[in-house]
Amino acid sequence: MTKRGLKIATIGGGSSYTPELIEGFIKRHDSLPVKDIWLVDVEAGLEKLHIVTALAKRMVEKSGIDLQIHAVTDREEALKDADFVTTQFRVGQLEARIRDERIPLRYGRIGQETTGAGGFAKALRSVPVILDICRDMERLCPDAFLINFANPSGILTEAALNHSSIRAIGLCNCPINMISDMAEKFDCPAGDVFCDFVGINHLIWAQRVLVRGKDVTKTAIEKLCADTAADVMANIPDIHFDPALLKALNMIPVSYLKYYYMQPEMFAECVRAAENEGCRGEVIRGVEKELFALYQDPELAVKPPQLAKRGGARYSDAACSLIDSIYNNKKDIQTVNVLNNGANTDLPDHAVIERNCVIDADGAHPLQIGRTPLAIRGLLQNVKAYEQLTIEAAINGDYDKALLALTIHPLVDSATVAKQILDDILAENKEYLPKFNY
Amino acid sequence: MTKRGLKIATIGGGSSYTPELIEGFIKRHDSLPVKDIWLVDVEAGLEKLHIVTALAKRMVEKSGIDLQIHAVTDREEALKDADFVTTQFRVGQLEARIRDERIPLRYGRIGQETTGAGGFAKALRSVPVILDICRDMERLCPDAFLINFANPSGILTEAALNHSSIRAIGLCNCPINMISDMAEKFDCPAGDVFCDFVGINHLIWAQRVLVRGKDVTKTAIEKLCADTAADVMANIPDIHFDPALLKALNMIPVSYLKYYYMQPEMFAECVRAAENEGCRGEVIRGVEKELFALYQDPELAVKPPQLAKRGGARYSDAACSLIDSIYNNKKDIQTVNVLNNGANTDLPDHAVIERNCVIDADGAHPLQIGRTPLAIRGLLQNVKAYEQLTIEAAINGDYDKALLALTIHPLVDSATVAKQILDDILAENKEYLPKFNY
Amino acid sequence: MTKRGLKIATIGGGSSYTPELIEGFIKRHDSLPVKDIWLVDVEAGLEKLHIVTALAKRMVEKSGIDLQIHAVTDREEALKDADFVTTQFRVGQLEARIRDERIPLRYGRIGQETTGAGGFAKALRSVPVILDICRDMERLCPDAFLINFANPSGILTEAALNHSSIRAIGLCNCPINMISDMAEKFDCPAGDVFCDFVGINHLIWAQRVLVRGKDVTKTAIEKLCADTAADVMANIPDIHFDPALLKALNMIPVSYLKYYYMQPEMFAECVRAAENEGCRGEVIRGVEKELFALYQDPELAVKPPQLAKRGGARYSDAACSLIDSIYNNKKDIQTVNVLNNGANTDLPDHAVIERNCVIDADGAHPLQIGRTPLAIRGLLQNVKAYEQLTIEAAINGDYDKALLALTIHPLVDSATVAKQILDDILAENKEYLPKFNY
Amino acid sequence: MTKRGLKIATIGGGSSYTPELIEGFIKRHDSLPVKDIWLVDVEAGLEKLHIVTALAKRMVEKSGIDLQIHAVTDREEALKDADFVTTQFRVGQLEARIRDERIPLRYGRIGQETTGAGGFAKALRSVPVILDICRDMERLCPDAFLINFANPSGILTEAALNHSSIRAIGLCNCPINMISDMAEKFDCPAGDVFCDFVGINHLIWAQRVLVRGKDVTKTAIEKLCADTAADVMANIPDIHFDPALLKALNMIPVSYLKYYYMQPEMFAECVRAAENEGCRGEVIRGVEKELFALYQDPELAVKPPQLAKRGGARYSDAACSLIDSIYNNKKDIQTVNVLNNGANTDLPDHAVIERNCVIDADGAHPLQIGRTPLAIRGLLQNVKAYEQLTIEAAINGDYDKALLALTIHPLVDSATVAKQILDDILAENKEYLPKFNY
Repeated sequence: MTKRGLKIATIGGGSSYTPELIEGFIKRHDSLPVKDIWLVDVEAGLEKLHIVTALAKRMVEKSGIDLQIHAVTDREEALKDADFVTTQFRVGQLEARIRDERIPLRYGRIGQETTGAGGFAKALRSVPVILDICRDMERLCPDAFLINFANPSGILTEAALNHSSIRAIGLCNCPINMISDMAEKFDCPAGDVFCDFVGINHLIWAQRVLVRGKDVTKTAIEKLCADTAADVMANIPDIHFDPALLKALNMIPVSYLKYYYMQPEMFAECVRAAENEGCRGEVIRGVEKELFALYQDPELAVKPPQLAKRGGARYSDAACSLIDSIYNNKKDIQTVNVLNNGANTDLPDHAVIERNCVIDADGAHPLQIGRTPLAIRGLLQNVKAYEQLTIEAAINGDYDKALLALTIHPLVDSATVAKQILDDILAENKEYLPKFNY
Repeated sequence: MTKRGLKIATIGGGSSYTPELIEGFIKRHDSLPVKDIWLVDVEAGLEKLHIVTALAKRMVEKSGIDLQIHAVTDREEALKDADFVTTQFRVGQLEARIRDERIPLRYGRIGQETTGAGGFAKALRSVPVILDICRDMERLCPDAFLINFANPSGILTEAALNHSSIRAIGLCNCPINMISDMAEKFDCPAGDVFCDFVGINHLIWAQRVLVRGKDVTKTAIEKLCADTAADVMANIPDIHFDPALLKALNMIPVSYLKYYYMQPEMFAECVRAAENEGCRGEVIRGVEKELFALYQDPELAVKPPQLAKRGGARYSDAACSLIDSIYNNKKDIQTVNVLNNGANTDLPDHAVIERNCVIDADGAHPLQIGRTPLAIRGLLQNVKAYEQLTIEAAINGDYDKALLALTIHPLVDSATVAKQILDDILAENKEYLPKFNY
Repeated sequence: MTKRGLKIATIGGGSSYTPELIEGFIKRHDSLPVKDIWLVDVEAGLEKLHIVTALAKRMVEKSGIDLQIHAVTDREEALKDADFVTTQFRVGQLEARIRDERIPLRYGRIGQETTGAGGFAKALRSVPVILDICRDMERLCPDAFLINFANPSGILTEAALNHSSIRAIGLCNCPINMISDMAEKFDCPAGDVFCDFVGINHLIWAQRVLVRGKDVTKTAIEKLCADTAADVMANIPDIHFDPALLKALNMIPVSYLKYYYMQPEMFAECVRAAENEGCRGEVIRGVEKELFALYQDPELAVKPPQLAKRGGARYSDAACSLIDSIYNNKKDIQTVNVLNNGANTDLPDHAVIERNCVIDADGAHPLQIGRTPLAIRGLLQNVKAYEQLTIEAAINGDYDKALLALTIHPLVDSATVAKQILDDILAENKEYLPKFNY
Repeated sequence: MTKRGLKIATIGGGSSYTPELIEGFIKRHDSLPVKDIWLVDVEAGLEKLHIVTALAKRMVEKSGIDLQIHAVTDREEALKDADFVTTQFRVGQLEARIRDERIPLRYGRIGQETTGAGGFAKALRSVPVILDICRDMERLCPDAFLINFANPSGILTEAALNHSSIRAIGLCNCPINMISDMAEKFDCPAGDVFCDFVGINHLIWAQRVLVRGKDVTKTAIEKLCADTAADVMANIPDIHFDPALLKALNMIPVSYLKYYYMQPEMFAECVRAAENEGCRGEVIRGVEKELFALYQDPELAVKPPQLAKRGGARYSDAACSLIDSIYNNKKDIQTVNVLNNGANTDLPDHAVIERNCVIDADGAHPLQIGRTPLAIRGLLQNVKAYEQLTIEAAINGDYDKALLALTIHPLVDSATVAKQILDDILAENKEYLPKFNY
């Protein structure tokens, strides 16, 4: 892939993250010659799209590089002959997220937007959309890479890879944030840190941490136990892992694992927050309002620092970095979501995993894992089974599979509660779930 | 194995179940020529042992067959040249079981004696004992079959098969009780019912139910949904499965699965019972008192019908039936606990599974399963990982592994709660857990 | 399956084996109430079909049972609502077999009709035919069992199971002949012998031989080494296995394994025979002529003893026995060809294996195997890869896959020779291989 | 691993390849600060060791770097605290190799020194030696990496990894030679070529060839078919692959695969050569004589160009490059022999495979493969089974396993011939095979 003048299509272009993406392409322009960026959004997101597009244009102009920004609602025009398609859409906007978080709370369960019943609702809405995009890509840009960072990222990537011919790679900012956190703890550049990540999206562990090739896992855990700072992930409550657990595990769990390992404490915090400053979606609504007010400032021609407050910091940068390595056949290692294909021998071949991969012009190639430690194996296998059932339920509008998926989720684990939550999700998301005739 | 005059050694011979075992051998005496039964028990169980032995002798005398009953505390004497060893011991007697059930309740978790934190405590105490028995057998009767029905039966069988050279087979009365229940529901002899059982001990599902070769699963589920009778397992609360769940599953779950699928309801019932009639161990203490009073009646020379009230009904009969098929090379199908060895491709080779097996003179040979349905796969894999960590913790007295095992158990799933429960278990079982220097 | 009055359709009904099949149904009539047998054959086999049908009718008449024999060339009429379909066709008749055996000899390779290049040619011709039959069955009798004993039996069964929805079971007479041979060697009834068969069709080993549950493998091997009698399989040359090999293996190989283990000797014997009494197909042509002359005798109303001289002795009896166990839900153990589905963990899930199975109304359920010994694993895996490539080549008329299949076959193992043989096969079988536009 | 002043121990230091190794360390001295190289050899190789050591010292002196060369027969002294141990020994010297090549020819089989019966004999002699070295390393330098390039490299590496705690990595020059050849064919630097290698040592295929990220496999095959030049591997006869085979495969096979795909032609060439210029070992004897004559020249202070005529060209350079990447935590991709651990899902976890690996301070991490194409799977599995049986035979001196290993080898495939060859190998290698009491 050596042609110059790349075309990028960004689905959900009106997202508040877009300026980071634009910044990423600008600063890599020498090595990654992007010519056109097509920002696509739905009618409901048109206002945001226009604000973001204007800001993007100002950023490009300021940089002085040759790059066109286009804003459209016609997805086909954007996809036609694209080289890379990035997806960062949110079906149903923030209102849907707020419902996702609030419904489970009614029934005494955690309502997180990727993990638990909230993420389940989001998956039901989003799987059909990512597959629609893939269908379009099969016609309009069959050789393009799909870089998905819409959530739940692992589930959407798995749906795309198993139900289309598109080369999809899923992204998450957790791995780079964890590396960043370790670099800070060990006071070294991020490039000196290597984490042996194992797991699936939002359910990964760094089995080992190496600094310049030396295993420092034990020290890393001690540092983590001693840590009193806020969580590295902005959108996760500041509950700390039980030090006895960290010591027993001898691995670094991603912050999302608190929902499993510290479930009662996290639930209590979710309830407290919802009753006070609002659930996370409601908080984000405020943050976004503030961000878009900033974005509208005609003097602003850079990514504003306030964006870092959103949970998705570094997401877009990770996307640019991935595209760069593919385009330039770099063969460096990045942690992305790919088909398992036997890399983790405890998960099915067709499962998507989050794993250290060599990135080259041909895509992402996972480093072999082998078996996972017993201490994490069961949880991993259980959540993956939940994910796969959810994909089947979403594609076919299958009520029974949806019920089973939610029932076996570790944050629900009650058939009766699962039914109550599911029924509310279906009722309140009717317009986004046409496959469920319910 | 055609020699006549078999020697049976029964560890935990003073159990209230023993009369059923004796009855089983008496009624099969024509085809299964048992010559000596050695009932072994520890000093603490001596009184019960004497009562049971006396009853057993009266039963044999009444039958007029040639069979000697021996009661000893010297295990080696009993094991020497035994043909079959059956295990039905309970380390720490009923008092330990009551503690197992009460400790988790303190922390808001289910305290069941095989499932959940209660079963975990029982496993920690029992794994070293079953391995001691295997060590003795390796010296004294290396070719004997070990028929284990001490609980947690799957865990103990897995420990024995992976850490000794003894041919162990694990038993549970759930499968035969489920078949029995189906026979009643379909008004046919038990022999006409075939259940395609998949899973592990106390975590099985009948994937399909066949009556005389015809698939009647759907009807069976309808009957189960309509059922208002008490649970087929005497020791499990009479909460019913949610019909929506059963319909979605399209399989028949074993009663123990209520602890997972109906966790809040089951927890509430455990709390209610504990506060009123007492936890299950306390109820059993009353039942046993009553049973042993009956057993002492010098006129009694049969298994009294009241024994059926104990949860273990049909356990001993299953053991006799298994021994019969081995001795007579019958090649019939029974559902027992054996090494997976690839039969269930979603579980490790060295895991023990509960599965339909062909029974012959060579032991138990599982019918191939292949993959398990997604709806049950994750739970199965998660509980098996818990079991394997528990075995490792028990063998090595490893606190960290114990903590991780309890943390990942679906009925605990909180590292902090797990630590609290674990610390109490270790403190209150000190004398039975010498490997934990804690 | 309890209805009375079964309908059987036999594709290749004009085969000389048919009288054995008829005899099998007659003698089982009490338990297996067959009402109609439809013998189907192609125009080219019409004369044989009439002769066999007349004999079959005389046999039925003599038996006095209520059973109708029908002879047709219209396959659809025969398949309509059939309960069991048996297949024993030979595409291209004996002339094709003779070519299969002669072509490889030209290039210094063994031309056996199931093993090696001969079997490869037969597979190319037969896979499309079995799939045509399955297509018809899907329309006309979707619930019927297909009992295939057309060769190469494993390949055809694998094609049927993976490329149709038909419940196919493959048969071979090797396992029962090996059991029979062992029964003779141990002077006991066949029912007392149990062989732990592992492998694929015409490539099985009895890992262990048990007589009344006792392992007698070592003795069996000694007896086999001492044996000077003719081979138990009538159609395999009387070369004996090298005793050092048998001792090292500690398993009983099926006679067809001589083609691999004793390749030079077997090749020499094939050449010698071809130059003298003729290749096996030519010998059979004589035997068949003789048989059909006998069959025409209007006084003959039983299966003539001369049939035993054909290599397929006991094939039809195995088919009747299998149908009997399915119909009567017997749950006995028979050795048949079924989907692996993980039973042999060294072969792919979709591979067909030959294995001891429990036979019930639901079909054939393999006993779990686990890993195979290293000594046989590689050969097994290699021949299975050959088989799977051959199926792909046959279905798609793919020259390259055909070439690769033949190249990797252990009896060819030269790309250049493989190409020569393949080109001759394609040229001389043009009318039977329309998918190959060559 | 950042300490300066590395210690290297080279077992078989008197090899003619050593000057290449020395040259490699000299030219990398800036980034790879080797301080001491200990050349170890047995008494029988002392003369060569002295010649090579003198040349090495002259080379170092000329380079002006700070590096000490030591020559010893005491292995322990050399291993003590070594950072890297490289192995390039040949048990029994060239005389043994000549026997390995000549014995099979007597019985009409190919006698190649790594592939076939010759390599089998070499493995029997060498496995115990590599394990002895590992035993010493466990005591004297447990954290050192063992870089093995003694042949058969895959077998020796597998023995070391499964039977010791040493971190062994196996090397072969085939992959770099294949890349080099492709670079020449595509007229580009070797760094632009990427081959997706799959297989095991001396049995690999480049599944795909990419030049600067672009798939050029088809063109590569066309170029290979058109090629009339001598084989890229100096020690392999100049028979060309059948173009029809290459086209059907659509992969680039390593030259050693000619022994399988072009067996009759290769055998004929071996016979011809043996009768004329001598078998390869005999030719090498001449080349070595010439080389050592050159090495003795006190004016010579560089690696002489004539060394390229030996088959092992680039072997030592590959070793230096590997050590460099480990020491400098480079995370580049090299093709080496490592434990499979699920990377190739068609081979056992404990098998050693030859695969593209990321090399860092922690060792070599294979890129995931998944399933291998049917066209190569069976051969791969069969040869791996042979290798594993051979290791077991070598370790235990097990005659039966040795016989089975040789019998199933695709270049032998006759039990009777295997026995003849085996008996000769055992008889003629008595002094090197003390475990075989034969």
